Amino acid sequence: MLKHDTHIRVCYGDTDKMGVVYYGTYPRYYEIARTEMLRSFGISYREMEENGLVLPVRNLHITYLKPAFYDDLLTVRTILEELPTVRFRLKTEIYNPAMELINQGEVTLIFTSPETGKAMKPPQWVLDKFRELME
Amino acid sequence: MLKHDTHIRVCYGDTDKMGVVYYGTYPRYYEIARTEMLRSFGISYREMEENGLVLPVRNLHITYLKPAFYDDLLTVRTILEELPTVRFRLKTEIYNPAMELINQGEVTLIFTSPETGKAMKPPQWVLDKFRELME
Amino acid sequence: MLKHDTHIRVCYGDTDKMGVVYYGTYPRYYEIARTEMLRSFGISYREMEENGLVLPVRNLHITYLKPAFYDDLLTVRTILEELPTVRFRLKTEIYNPAMELINQGEVTLIFTSPETGKAMKPPQWVLDKFRELME
Amino acid sequence: MLKHDTHIRVCYGDTDKMGVVYYGTYPRYYEIARTEMLRSFGISYREMEENGLVLPVRNLHITYLKPAFYDDLLTVRTILEELPTVRFRLKTEIYNPAMELINQGEVTLIFTSPETGKAMKPPQWVLDKFRELME
Repeated sequence: MLKHDTHIRVCYGDTDKMGVVYYGTYPRYYEIARTEMLRSFGISYREMEENGLVLPVRNLHITYLKPAFYDDLLTVRTILEELPTVRFRLKTEIYNPAMELINQGEVTLIFTSPETGKAMKPPQWVLDKFRELME
Repeated sequence: MLKHDTHIRVCYGDTDKMGVVYYGTYPRYYEIARTEMLRSFGISYREMEENGLVLPVRNLHITYLKPAFYDDLLTVRTILEELPTVRFRLKTEIYNPAMELINQGEVTLIFTSPETGKAMKPPQWVLDKFRELME
Repeated sequence: MLKHDTHIRVCYGDTDKMGVVYYGTYPRYYEIARTEMLRSFGISYREMEENGLVLPVRNLHITYLKPAFYDDLLTVRTILEELPTVRFRLKTEIYNPAMELINQGEVTLIFTSPETGKAMKPPQWVLDKFRELME
Repeated sequence: MLKHDTHIRVCYGDTDKMGVVYYGTYPRYYEIARTEMLRSFGISYREMEENGLVLPVRNLHITYLKPAFYDDLLTVRTILEELPTVRFRLKTEIYNPAMELINQGEVTLIFTSPETGKAMKPPQWVLDKFRELME
């Protein structure tokens, strides 16, 4: 199992009139955190794309436990429990500054060829990298 | 079962560099559609709030089946299958201009008192309204 | 001078914790309104792009006069005062439901070739269309 | 004159189908950067609000010089040239990873009482802080 923490500061534009982070803001937090996780593993999502691979989201599940507030420095934890196949499944946990779990979710992305739009196996170097990290 | 269709035009700001609607844009579409559903039933979400009730989202589930493109006029269908209790569960289906189902999801909101932050039963007039509509 | 009105309903995601529309939401409203203006003139921005033309924004100016609130049905007026050249300048005025002017601004877009990234004159049919409409 | 640099990583959700950062994303970058500037001066915008002061934006001007791309680590420079009065004017300059100036703008915020909605002078401690920093 691999874990990675990213810190995201809640800005004004992330909140809504309820005074808390808008529910539609969280997918963005998840995206930032998983990109930083990959970067920490030496995998640039941008380079993957430049090498002919996209990773559209297939499934998103979010459970909102407690609100997040303006200016909170959130800890966004991305968790990889299994080696990616065609599907790349990541869990996310968000903690507020008091380190209470306030949000948890799961995203499934699909390794996809931008030319054909079809699902494909991830490139060998990506698999090797994850295998190495998870051992 | 109650169904309601809203039409949403995809704007530039909704898209991302993959050339399609960003996965984090959909919760916004869901929100717009459920508010319009309530409005069509004579229930103003704004007035509910002004009468001391908020409806934070507790759960969100989205399955992304096909991409939506810039300038598409999407049909966003909101479906209510059961009378709200403390929980208010709504399904959403999104259709592209060719009326293909491209996205489906479910949102669970919780009737909540803004003073106590606690879950509460919806007001009687809201329940009566839904009961009447679902008969 | 050409004028066109579009109606935009403020959603939850457009607001911020001040209880009003976030200042960064307005460029989106401007974008939606100018696209609808073009559509009303028989000009599809999407088709322009498919025919090898993009219109990046060069300048944006916004004056925020009064707040807009959740669920307000805003009237977004787009005003074209001069024929486009390489520059395409549009004014925007936003009115709240009481028809008070709450926001005004100006956007300058540049007709640009996506291949070269260079500014270019708009296609003749676009110019002809505007000339005809402005007479 | 006071200057402060913040670094912002462009995420997927910030881009649009043109493959670059959406023009409506920049106000958010400006907001994040000015909040970090204040924080670096020991001024928490959140605390100012909690002490009965809001700072709505009155004017926004942006000039888009060059595009910003996905995953770019941008340098967002906030510049304060004059002591705030009722008006608080800040310039912003954004540099891409090659340190080319790609975007510049100016925001004017108004110190406002949330109770009366009226403009007011900033609190003495805020003025003192800025005076001290600018000397």
